This record gives sequence, structure tokens and C-alpha cells, in this order.
Amino acid sequence: MSKKLFLLPGDGIGPEIMAEVKAIIDWMNSAGLAKFETDEGLVGGAAYDAHQVSISEGDMEKAMAADAILFGAVGGPKWDKVPYEHRPEAGLLRLRKDLDLFANLRPAICYPALADASSLKREVVEGLDILIVRELTGGTYFGTPKEIVTLENGDKRAVDTQVYTTPEIERIARVAFELAKTRRNHVFSSEKHNVMRSGVLWKEVVTRVHAEEYADVQLTHILADNCAMQLVRNPKQFDVIVTDNLFGDILSDAAAMLTGSLGMLPSASLGAEDAKTGSRKALYEPVHGSAPDITGKGVANPIAMIGSLAMALRYSFGMIEEANKLEAAIAKVLADGLRTGDIAAKGEATVGTKDMGAAVLKAF
Amino acid sequence: MSKKLFLLPGDGIGPEIMAEVKAIIDWMNSAGLAKFETDEGLVGGAAYDAHQVSISEGDMEKAMAADAILFGAVGGPKWDKVPYEHRPEAGLLRLRKDLDLFANLRPAICYPALADASSLKREVVEGLDILIVRELTGGTYFGTPKEIVTLENGDKRAVDTQVYTTPEIERIARVAFELAKTRRNHVFSSEKHNVMRSGVLWKEVVTRVHAEEYADVQLTHILADNCAMQLVRNPKQFDVIVTDNLFGDILSDAAAMLTGSLGMLPSASLGAEDAKTGSRKALYEPVHGSAPDITGKGVANPIAMIGSLAMALRYSFGMIEEANKLEAAIAKVLADGLRTGDIAAKGEATVGTKDMGAAVLKAF
Ligand SMILES: CC(C)[C@H](C(=O)O)[C@@H](O)C(=O)O
Ligand SMILES: CC(C)[C@H](C(=O)O)[C@@H](O)C(=O)O
Repeated sequence: MSKKLFLLPGDGIGPEIMAEVKAIIDWMNSAGLAKFETDEGLVGGAAYDAHQVSISEGDMEKAMAADAILFGAVGGPKWDKVPYEHRPEAGLLRLRKDLDLFANLRPAICYPALADASSLKREVVEGLDILIVRELTGGTYFGTPKEIVTLENGDKRAVDTQVYTTPEIERIARVAFELAKTRRNHVFSSEKHNVMRSGVLWKEVVTRVHAEEYADVQLTHILADNCAMQLVRNPKQFDVIVTDNLFGDILSDAAAMLTGSLGMLPSASLGAEDAKTGSRKALYEPVHGSAPDITGKGVANPIAMIGSLAMALRYSFGMIEEANKLEAAIAKVLADGLRTGDIAAKGEATVGTKDMGAAVLKAF
Repeated sequence: MSKKLFLLPGDGIGPEIMAEVKAIIDWMNSAGLAKFETDEGLVGGAAYDAHQVSISEGDMEKAMAADAILFGAVGGPKWDKVPYEHRPEAGLLRLRKDLDLFANLRPAICYPALADASSLKREVVEGLDILIVRELTGGTYFGTPKEIVTLENGDKRAVDTQVYTTPEIERIARVAFELAKTRRNHVFSSEKHNVMRSGVLWKEVVTRVHAEEYADVQLTHILADNCAMQLVRNPKQFDVIVTDNLFGDILSDAAAMLTGSLGMLPSASLGAEDAKTGSRKALYEPVHGSAPDITGKGVANPIAMIGSLAMALRYSFGMIEEANKLEAAIAKVLADGLRTGDIAAKGEATVGTKDMGAAVLKAF
């Protein structure tokens, strides 16, 4: 049976890097490795330009019906002045919320070939392999009240609300513990229980889920500020880090940068497993943004986008072998010395988006 | 006229490092450099053990009446189970809130002698000099509702509230712009306006204060996740970073760790200037914590605590020359090769808390 892939290239370099993924999908279909049916939609500024919204209802329906979504990037200075509810990011946030993609998996791995591109010392990051499990549909991102009100004296008052409930924390904790079992068996749970009530509940629920269901996995609680510090000081102490939406946003970006190769890192946003079909909604996207400064120049690094396809093969289609092969192909072209501008050392020769994509496909 | 210094050593290594500061204060008094009257109180776990609260009303009164407070550190596993409202951190949070210490200044500087202690490459951090200006009395730390409620089905729901008003943002922005003028004239304002309404208001107010009062200072807006990334990638691009309470907590800890010398970094928490007297309430504290693991061993690094006294001389007592001299004394002992355990390279000889304190005093 064929599988539905819905592509949302978005803005900036999104379409350029998505093109390389399409080439790989086409090849997999023609080689008989898979039967992917692809469709494409608009999101972010591209959707705004066409429909004055950050994602159309039609595309939301297609996203809902897809077996997996591949998402490029959204945003850019062109849309800085659009109404707040239609800003490019709103399309992404709506996809996460409406599809209930609560589990955001952000691996931060350091490719040996690229360890020198990191601002950290080689010995601190070489072999780094962290998985950040970020809660993605709760917290400050979606809690209400969320508003700006004008007070009597003309001043304004802005409010955002951090909300977490027991089941929200339970389900993300389970994802983290399950993933840790396939890795080094150690979960770090990060919050600010010394200041936030949501942190108190977070710690309490993670502790209970651990004791009741995952006592064989090692659990360490770490305050979010200390976690940011320890990521800089000695990132290799970490295995899986589970944290809330806002801390996850910041900690995962810091972790990504440790590897020296932001353009390299994919992510997966997963929904709950359907009890009947065993399938789950899922969106895959690079960790990097739309990079308006290099858009249209053919120099963007497609590896994070290709790595996102590899994650889709693994988590949405159970194609573990193909996922491993595609990731090995990425590692191989890097070991062979191929570099896009973002990961090239001073003076090193660089290739463009298309050449990098083609090389990965060839090595696949 | 004599000046009142109120000392709150707190828990863990707090008393040990405060002892070194006391020696410097005594020497300044006896050398006729200053006329400091000191008094001492309890905070955190130490206060809980004595009075079952995180700070007593008597000590709060003394804190209110002081010209400056020197604060050590609070917390430790001993008090993990005390009632939430009496946890050690509550004493610090109450001091900040009741004294309206809204401006938290956290310098992250990299001493040349210590550049190799950083996990980052020497060239990335050598000469680093960032000042983080963190809003300290608003946001998620103090907004209400702040509660955990039990729902009908037995699940719990935790809420924290991020609140900012126009005047709160205005006053912290002014502090940042004023400080930038004495430095490299560049303020980075960090928030998440793409997700949070408080970020939208933050950006709007900072932009207006800049245009109306500080157009000659360079202003760059940067999303908090990107700021965390850029701190890791290229920290030397920053001068002053102004941000909210929670982002400031995390970003300043990450920045502190870049320097490779957490035990080295002081901070100042300042209130508003009294229109009549020109004085302001102020609390000075190291950025590091109470370090229960090394407590009582005489090995803690007193430099962050001594640096906090230097900040007090500068910001509370206008003793700029003495502040500079004390900071130069710190730099000198480091350049001379003196190292406590936390900043020693492998195999390097180390000195204890008392020797380090005495060496700084001698170089002062
Ligand atoms: C684009 C933005 C809304 C988003 C977020 O804050 O979650 C991004 O930073 C991310 O981490 O995916
Ligand atoms: C001790 C704790 C309450 C405090 C905070 O979160 O502000 C600390 O981390 C700090 O940064 O001063």
C-alpha cells in the first residue's frame, strides 16, 4: 500500500532543500524501495502571499490525512509586518497543535568529520550524541490567557500562561524513557521546580512514571539553568533530555550549536500512537530556519532536510534499515570531504545544495 | 559617614567564601579606605534550621535598611523536603521582590589566564566581555496565578504566569542602554515575540525607549533561542544583552559557563534610584550556587564573592577606583598562576579558599 507524504517546503531555503529530498523520494519509488505518494502545500509566508493565512484549510486537511509531513522552514523579513495571527510561525504552531504532535525529538549529534567546525574543543564534542525530547503542544506556547491588554493609564500588560497537566507530562515522559531504552538508558528531566509550579508538577510526574514503569532506566533531575550550563561545560554527560516546550526550544538550539553543524540537524514531531492502527501523525523538519540571507543562491545545506526524511523512514514507516543507510550516506559524503559553505573550514572547497543532495543520493 | 553592609552568607560554601570578603572589608576599614559597618544574618537553609523560614522578618528589616547586601548562596540536599514556601530559594526571591531589585547585572568575562579552562576554543572566548542585564522582579517568577490544582478526575494542573507591563520593561531597558554607553554601545534585546505576547510587548517597548531616548546606542533584537545558539557559536559578537527574568536565568548561566570559570563571576541586583538621595537598594552575589559537594573542605573559589564586593564598591558606593583595583588584584593572582581546584588545569597545583582570598587581599 502506498504511503502519503505531504511536503510543506515553506519559505526561504525551504524549497531548495526540499528539492533534494524529493529527488531521494523519487529514487526510492523508482528503485522499488518504497511506494510514496507525494503532495505539496504552502505554509508560512508562502501561504500568506497566496491566501493571506499562514496555512490554508485545504492544506491543513491534507496534513491531517498524510502519513507523514515533511516541513522545510518558515519566516523571513518580508513578512515581519503581517498581522500577528497570520505570521509565518503561526502555520507551524497550528500544525503542531491541531495534529497533537506533542513529542519533539531533536538529536544533537556531532559528525566526526565536522568536530572542528564546533566552537567547542574537539575533545568536548567529538562523538556527542544527545537526544532532546521536547514537549511541543503545551506550556507557554499555547496556554491562555495569552494577551496584551491596555490599562486605564495607557500602559500595556502582556500575559502568557504556562500550563501543564498530569497526562501531558506522563506521555512525554514515556516517550523519553522508551527512547532512552534504545540508547544509553539515561534520562535527564529538566525544569525549574525551584521557581515554577509547573516545574514542581513536572518533576513529581516524571518521578512517578519512572518509579512505576521505568525503574530500570537511570533518571536525573536537572534545573534548566544548570542544564544550559552543563551542555556547554560537558555535553557528553547527557543521553536523553526531556523538558517542556519553552526550555526545549532554548536548550535544543544550544545543543544543536554545540555540534558546530546546525545545518545538519533534523527533528521529528510525533503524535500519539493510534490504538487501532498503531500509526501516528508526524512532522519532520530541519532544526535550522529559513535563512533568508542565502535564499535562492543554491548554497543551502540540504543535510538537515535529508536527515528529516531519514527520521520519517524510521519513525513513521518502520524502514529502519533504509533510515540507517540514508544516515550512513550523509556521514560518508562528509567523511569524503564534501562541504557546503556553512560547514566548510576557512579555505576549504565548497559544493552547492544540488551537488550535496546528489552526492548523498549516490552514497545511499 | 559609615555605610551599612548586610552579609547573608547562606548555605554550603557561602560562609567560607564570605569569610574572605569579610577579611577584605576589615582591611579596607583599618586602612581608612572605607567606613563599613557590617552586620550578618541568615538566609536559605541556615535560616530554616534556625527559624523555620527562609529568611526571618528581622533579617528582612536589616536587609531593607542596609546600603548594600552581600549574599553568598542558598540551598542543598538537606532542605530538599522542606515545605515549598520555606525552601532556601524563597529567601532569595523574597529579597529580590520586596527590595524591588529589578535589574540583575551579570558580567561574563573571560580572564586571559583562564581562557584554556573553557570548553570552547581559546580564540572563541579569549577577551570575552558580555554584560547580561536580566529583569529580576517580574515575569514567570512572580506572576499569578501560580498554583497546582487537583482536577475532578484526580489529575493535577500546574500554572505559572508570565506577566510584563510597559513600565517594567521601560526601566530595565534604560538600565541596559545606560550601561551600554559605558561599554561598546550595543544592546541586544532578547525575547520570543514569535510565540509569546510578553515578547511582543517587550520588543515594542524596547524599540520605543531606544528611539526616544537612546537612538545613539545600537540595538539588535534577537530571539531567545537564537541568542542561546549565538552565545555558543560566537559569543564575542555580544556587548549588553537585556532580557526577561526566565530567559535571563538560562542565558546568563550559559554565558557564565562559556568563560570556563563559573566560580569567578559576580552579579549585582539593583533597585531604582531614590529620587531624593540618589541611592539604590542593592544585593551582590556570586553566580555560582552553594556547592554542597565541596562544602567545608576549604577548597571553594572565593573570587566570585570577592568580585561581588567589587561590584558593590562600584555600584553602591561610587568607589570606582577601589573597585577597579580589587578586580585588578583578582586578575593579577590569576596571571600569577594561583588556582583553586575548579579552575586548575589537569596536574596544576591548587590553593584553598583562604590562600586565594589572602592572595587577592595582598594584591589589592
Ligand atoms: C519558529 C518557532 C515558532 C519555533 C519554536 O519556537 O518552537 C522554532 O524556534 C522551533 O524551535 O521549532
Ligand atoms: C536560586 C534560583 C531561585 C535563582 C533563579 O532562578 O533566579 C538562581 O538560579 C539565579 O539565577 O540567581
